[in-house]
Amino acid sequence: MSAREPMSPQELEAALRHVGATRYHNLHPFHKRLHSGQCTFEQVQAWALNRYYYQAMIPVKDATVLSRMNSSADRREWRKRIEDHDGTREGEGGIERWLKLTESLGFDRDYVISTRGILAATRFAVEAYVNFCAQKSLLEAVASSLTELFSPGIINERVSGMLAHYDFVSRETLAYFTARPAQAQRDSDFALAYVKQHAKSRVEQDAVIGALEFKTDVLWVQLDALWGAYVAGAIPPGAWRPGEGLQTRESAA
Amino acid sequence: MSAREPMSPQELEAALRHVGATRYHNLHPFHKRLHSGQCTFEQVQAWALNRYYYQAMIPVKDATVLSRMNSSADRREWRKRIEDHDGTREGEGGIERWLKLTESLGFDRDYVISTRGILAATRFAVEAYVNFCAQKSLLEAVASSLTELFSPGIINERVSGMLAHYDFVSRETLAYFTARPAQAQRDSDFALAYVKQHAKSRVEQDAVIGALEFKTDVLWVQLDALWGAYVAGAIPPGAWRPGEGLQTRESAA
Repeated sequence: MSAREPMSPQELEAALRHVGATRYHNLHPFHKRLHSGQCTFEQVQAWALNRYYYQAMIPVKDATVLSRMNSSADRREWRKRIEDHDGTREGEGGIERWLKLTESLGFDRDYVISTRGILAATRFAVEAYVNFCAQKSLLEAVASSLTELFSPGIINERVSGMLAHYDFVSRETLAYFTARPAQAQRDSDFALAYVKQHAKSRVEQDAVIGALEFKTDVLWVQLDALWGAYVAGAIPPGAWRPGEGLQTRESAA
Repeated sequence: MSAREPMSPQELEAALRHVGATRYHNLHPFHKRLHSGQCTFEQVQAWALNRYYYQAMIPVKDATVLSRMNSSADRREWRKRIEDHDGTREGEGGIERWLKLTESLGFDRDYVISTRGILAATRFAVEAYVNFCAQKSLLEAVASSLTELFSPGIINERVSGMLAHYDFVSRETLAYFTARPAQAQRDSDFALAYVKQHAKSRVEQDAVIGALEFKTDVLWVQLDALWGAYVAGAIPPGAWRPGEGLQTRESAA
């Protein structure tokens, strides 16, 4: 097949699944460490604290994508992502469930929301994702969400592993993940059909694959940074140190 | 002193110098390793390859700042930064001198320029810097350049250390650094005077200090990523591996 000849939709899907099989962050040693019970309490805290920023920016990213869609039908589909994360009323939604997790790990809620303890690498990676969705083509912005094709597997592995190995987590504190697989399935079904329909030329198809590779980088960089700071122990200046940002009797009240 | 009371210009300068003393990347273990001769040839290659992207984007960053300045006098000063990096004719300027360094380390010029082997963390950090200068206030954009206050020291340490310890570098291949201390001195004199003059309220002064902290993060993240990939050995998917991107007899001709 010539490099310029378009792939069939099935070939494109296979190429996208190959990106997942070779670059998704379930292959990262930090993921293995987390779900196999090798993380210390402080390492789980660091993971949840940093990952909060990713969670909190996902609806901002999705609103960016939404603002670029010209079709009501597409926007209705995409809007569900924002609803999932923000909920329909106070106390609901994925971000709120993530804050339940960080609170159950002892963090002060306002400290987590301030994001002042997160790693600079986390911040740069998450902001790169939002900027990508604002600046690249809509097709690439949609394609960059396709890591959700691979997330149900990692979530099941993470939840069962964490419940088996850590007495400081429970089904209730991991409630964020209970809702995710069905949402991710619905969202990735839409996004996969979208890119298979709209990426017709080989140039567009290569851009779609590149967008998914970019997104795997966004996730990988976050785990690399956690590893360097909290497993290897080289905490950068200004980042959270174990014991900081915790609930006091007042803030927990 | 109340938290809201403005600092004097001298106090602001002292606060900025304190950021350098506690967060500048001369404190990073990779810097120590590089200038003390502990880096392998491949680690020096990885450093030069990744740092190329930072060098190449500096005039893009400076053009962004330039586009936000309303005064001819300020623009005339700031323009010098772009001239330093781009030169006045083909074959001149800081980027070209950096490419001389990567070529002397065996890299194919086009491979370096493509940036396809750089670490994702390098890319995200450098792009965060450009976006910061586009999106924050002009005062913060100017302040974020102030790491140049601290660069003459690190450059002298780096050049003398590298010349003493590595037989694969020479004064000629390190020519980039010969020109930098005087340029950095001139540029940081201007930027320091600018922020001392324009940051009058405590809020503005805090923003200036925050901008310099942000910039130290941009530099620190790059060395953290080099350490993780090429010292600890966890090279992320897609990043350069030793032996890749080198000159062939053809490309060196």
